[in-house]
Amino acid sequence: MSRLKRLLIGRPLGNDDINREKYGVLWGLPILASDAISSVAYAGQEILLVLVPVIGLAAYGQLINISLVIIGLLAFLTFSYSQTIENYSNGGGAYIVAKDNLGITAGVTAGAALSVDYVMTVAVSISSGVEQITSAFLPLRPYTVHICIATIIFITIVNLRGVRESALIFGIPTYAVILAFLSMLIVGFINQKGGQVDQQISIKAIEPVSVLLLLKAFSNGCTALTGFEAVSNAVPNFKEPSVKHARSVLLLLSLTVLVLFGGTSLLAKAYCVVPGDRAIVVQIAEAVFDRNFMFFYVVATTFIILVMAANTAYSGFPLLVAVMAKEGYVPRQLGMRGDRLSYSNGIIVLSAVAIILITAFRARVSDLIGLYAIGVFISFTLSQAGMFARWLKNRGKHWKVKALINGTGALLTAAAVLVITTTKFSEGAWVVVVLIPALIYFMMKIKNHYTAVAKQLRISTEELKNTNISRDHYRNRVIVPVESINKASLRALRYAKTISDNVTAFNVSIDTESARKLRERYDKLKTGIPLIIKYSPFRKVVEPLLKFIESAEYDYQPGDMITVILPQFAVRTWWQNLLHNNTGIFIERELLRHNHIVIARMPLQLKYDDFVLKTRKNSKLEI
Amino acid sequence: MSRLKRLLIGRPLGNDDINREKYGVLWGLPILASDAISSVAYAGQEILLVLVPVIGLAAYGQLINISLVIIGLLAFLTFSYSQTIENYSNGGGAYIVAKDNLGITAGVTAGAALSVDYVMTVAVSISSGVEQITSAFLPLRPYTVHICIATIIFITIVNLRGVRESALIFGIPTYAVILAFLSMLIVGFINQKGGQVDQQISIKAIEPVSVLLLLKAFSNGCTALTGFEAVSNAVPNFKEPSVKHARSVLLLLSLTVLVLFGGTSLLAKAYCVVPGDRAIVVQIAEAVFDRNFMFFYVVATTFIILVMAANTAYSGFPLLVAVMAKEGYVPRQLGMRGDRLSYSNGIIVLSAVAIILITAFRARVSDLIGLYAIGVFISFTLSQAGMFARWLKNRGKHWKVKALINGTGALLTAAAVLVITTTKFSEGAWVVVVLIPALIYFMMKIKNHYTAVAKQLRISTEELKNTNISRDHYRNRVIVPVESINKASLRALRYAKTISDNVTAFNVSIDTESARKLRERYDKLKTGIPLIIKYSPFRKVVEPLLKFIESAEYDYQPGDMITVILPQFAVRTWWQNLLHNNTGIFIERELLRHNHIVIARMPLQLKYDDFVLKTRKNSKLEI
Repeated sequence: MSRLKRLLIGRPLGNDDINREKYGVLWGLPILASDAISSVAYAGQEILLVLVPVIGLAAYGQLINISLVIIGLLAFLTFSYSQTIENYSNGGGAYIVAKDNLGITAGVTAGAALSVDYVMTVAVSISSGVEQITSAFLPLRPYTVHICIATIIFITIVNLRGVRESALIFGIPTYAVILAFLSMLIVGFINQKGGQVDQQISIKAIEPVSVLLLLKAFSNGCTALTGFEAVSNAVPNFKEPSVKHARSVLLLLSLTVLVLFGGTSLLAKAYCVVPGDRAIVVQIAEAVFDRNFMFFYVVATTFIILVMAANTAYSGFPLLVAVMAKEGYVPRQLGMRGDRLSYSNGIIVLSAVAIILITAFRARVSDLIGLYAIGVFISFTLSQAGMFARWLKNRGKHWKVKALINGTGALLTAAAVLVITTTKFSEGAWVVVVLIPALIYFMMKIKNHYTAVAKQLRISTEELKNTNISRDHYRNRVIVPVESINKASLRALRYAKTISDNVTAFNVSIDTESARKLRERYDKLKTGIPLIIKYSPFRKVVEPLLKFIESAEYDYQPGDMITVILPQFAVRTWWQNLLHNNTGIFIERELLRHNHIVIARMPLQLKYDDFVLKTRKNSKLEI
Repeated sequence: MSRLKRLLIGRPLGNDDINREKYGVLWGLPILASDAISSVAYAGQEILLVLVPVIGLAAYGQLINISLVIIGLLAFLTFSYSQTIENYSNGGGAYIVAKDNLGITAGVTAGAALSVDYVMTVAVSISSGVEQITSAFLPLRPYTVHICIATIIFITIVNLRGVRESALIFGIPTYAVILAFLSMLIVGFINQKGGQVDQQISIKAIEPVSVLLLLKAFSNGCTALTGFEAVSNAVPNFKEPSVKHARSVLLLLSLTVLVLFGGTSLLAKAYCVVPGDRAIVVQIAEAVFDRNFMFFYVVATTFIILVMAANTAYSGFPLLVAVMAKEGYVPRQLGMRGDRLSYSNGIIVLSAVAIILITAFRARVSDLIGLYAIGVFISFTLSQAGMFARWLKNRGKHWKVKALINGTGALLTAAAVLVITTTKFSEGAWVVVVLIPALIYFMMKIKNHYTAVAKQLRISTEELKNTNISRDHYRNRVIVPVESINKASLRALRYAKTISDNVTAFNVSIDTESARKLRERYDKLKTGIPLIIKYSPFRKVVEPLLKFIESAEYDYQPGDMITVILPQFAVRTWWQNLLHNNTGIFIERELLRHNHIVIARMPLQLKYDDFVLKTRKNSKLEI
């Protein structure tokens, strides 16, 4: 296991390696941009899927309109987030900004919303990526879910290896996909073909354009904007000067999305591709290139950019939960770096939840899309509202303009949240509407638990000075549960004598005959330790022991500390462990509920436990 | 959890309750007979499935011939096993008989073969039972696997409750199914209809009857005999005189199977039912009764008898593995009785493996049947060969006749093993051919492990007398890993002082700043205990600690016993446990590999760990 882990994950990295794991603009862009860029593959398609069946050819005109609205939103977000990066160079994004300026509840809400968003990013991006592949190679379609899961496992391993190596693997392909789309746009617009008539015949308007329909289409289109917060969350992952690098990446990202998303929408209109059975990017590529090399190049790179998009979540989610873990809103383990300096627990949680979602929804993008976008738009809103509050409070140079930008951005995204929630409620959005408050509740509960624990454990410096740990010695008494008289129990009795002069041996017997035999053997051994034997009709061990401790016979005094010694075989392999009865584990779990009982586990290494009984040198056991 | 368990399983039973959990002939027959009786539902059907597609109408004649051969085998087995029961009143069946008379390898082989057989009994019986239901109610067919799993879970719960209550639940329905089949046979033979011509047209011979084909059909038919060994394995479950009760049940069982299996074969011939899409019992019942009340009664009771058949394995398998566990061939836990006196671990293992098999084979009886019957016929052969060897050695009254019966039986079943293995090898039998030797290997390995452990732990009476456990006192040293100075660590330091005067506090730090702060606070506390701080660049805890122990700095002397004290929070619920970092568990696991390190876990009960921070009386923690 351990060697397999090393092979997959790589050698452990020291804390000092941490600075070498950061990136600049050149690698930051491909790692963080892909979520936004990749939405080209599904945002336009999901807009058309809503419109075409109802309003027919008019859909393509509306696609352009909706795209323009979304690009407008993108512009606002770019300005808005640029201001955020400048003010928050330690990452955490919406969570930190909301918490700082709007209070804890807003921060936790943003954190919960973002967590949902990251998971959805992985689920939607991988499902869409694999949809590209199965649209180009139809025989692969029955294996959609399997391919999705294999891809997630691959990404997981890459991310567990750490950030820098991700940059090498993920950087070059991102530039390749930008090149692919630019080629497709250029060739597509130059050779606009007219041979799409047969498709146009099947596209008939059924109803006139309605506002509700446009809003539904807009909701699907909003998924194009998810992933923007990745840049501001990841500021501490940038090389110094990290703020400058992050802002440059944000601007470049917006320009790229503008060109690719806008261009593809225009191309979809020009070629009148019909959404439905096959992914529209694959259809456009086929129309433009006719299944030549470039067709496969576009399909492959689109798949890859969607995988990168999922990878964005792997940059963002573990960082976000690590920040929240440090503040006690999620389990502490999520804030610990693994062997390779990545936050391994966060990575594994993200993968596990995404795999469950993809399996549950059979990797259908149209079904998953209803759950998407709400999370991220809630966090957009809270982040910008936070910045707005900040300007109002702190003021500073040009504060009015800055507040206006952030405030307008907040209103726009808040409106989007409303639109998405109402138009997509029955198509999956309700899940998120239930889930986010549930997450907030649990995060608060966790925080309260950590606070309560810390409060109980805390010792003030004043108290420290006045504490003398050897002041009041209590009685330290030992009980050794004895199943039979063997080398392990003898060893435990001997140890017991060294740590206390108040030792009791204790046995639970299920019949009188075995009790008699045990006592006979025990008496041969002159220990000076009393042996208490209790009869247990229910084959229980712990209850009789606790009852004995509380009995007058044992004379337990408040303040006594009782150490229970559990002799334990240490065997060499896991299967050998299964062979030994685990009574010890149960005893331990029960007894640890008592404040004045210490459990001492005393291992006895078994020497020749092989299939063939070899006699080795020095195999004699000391007891 | 605990209350759910009580609700499902019932109150715990004391050891003294054990005698009340036994059965006589009246309840022994339904519990142990069902496997053999239930094969009426699939043995004939699987014979026809092999024959009809190839030899057409001639199949029905051959069905009768093959049934006669199998009934002949049944007769021999009845005599043979009757002699076994007489000689072995403590159960264990083939395993014990083979081990006693042919040696350990034969015994373990029989045990492995029987274990496979029991699992297959559950898988085949449940699959066939649910097939009856889905043949009668076709809309249920897509849920076949789900219904199978639900049924297994139901049986598991019933069996965990214990033997006696099983008798009440399972007894009456078994008699009901015997009644159902007898009614169907009587009505069927009285009203023989001629209206089956349309079916006969579709049954055309393709090839002449071949020996290989008949042997294949015979192999499938052999499944009718599985479950016979249940009676001889379960002798200790009978009321006294248990031998007499068991022999009566065996004889009654044979007669019942003779009538039902023979009668149904004749009826299948008379009505020319065609095997294939629907279970033949359902087809016969429909032909005889025309979907009136009796039709549903037959289907329901056939389902129930097949569930009972699975239940036979729940009587046999846990007893078998308990016997083997007591001798050390399988993990000891399988030999322990649960709260309700049933061997709960064996029951759970059986259910788990059966569920896996049913899921893997999509509950298709025809696919599972290839794996069935080999196991039980191997054990039949070994058991009878064992009895044969016994007569040769011990002689006694009429020993020659008895040896002849057992010897012939052994030869017959050995021939059946050969036939089944060769004719069904590619249809699944190879799995069993691989699995049984693998099981034998592991059982031998487990036995060797237990022997090695026992050898190392054993202390002779002589040694006991000469042992003085307080003779050579070793140095007892204590290390307290300290993460921060809090009430839990103070408590651990205080405890350490009471058990040794050689105590060291130990901290692993990932940066110098936190190390400095810790030392500052520690120094305020005048403990007289040295604090060692080590820097760990790889965020590891255990390695630095072990390195320290081995270092010259610590001055470890061979023979020193080191106690490591792990302070531990005891929280109230499982989710709170998830919130605390489990470093302690890892430290414990690593350190227990060392012979001279004792792990002492010191619990600290946290008092107010609720969502709302309430202050309670006496909530002040003592340290």
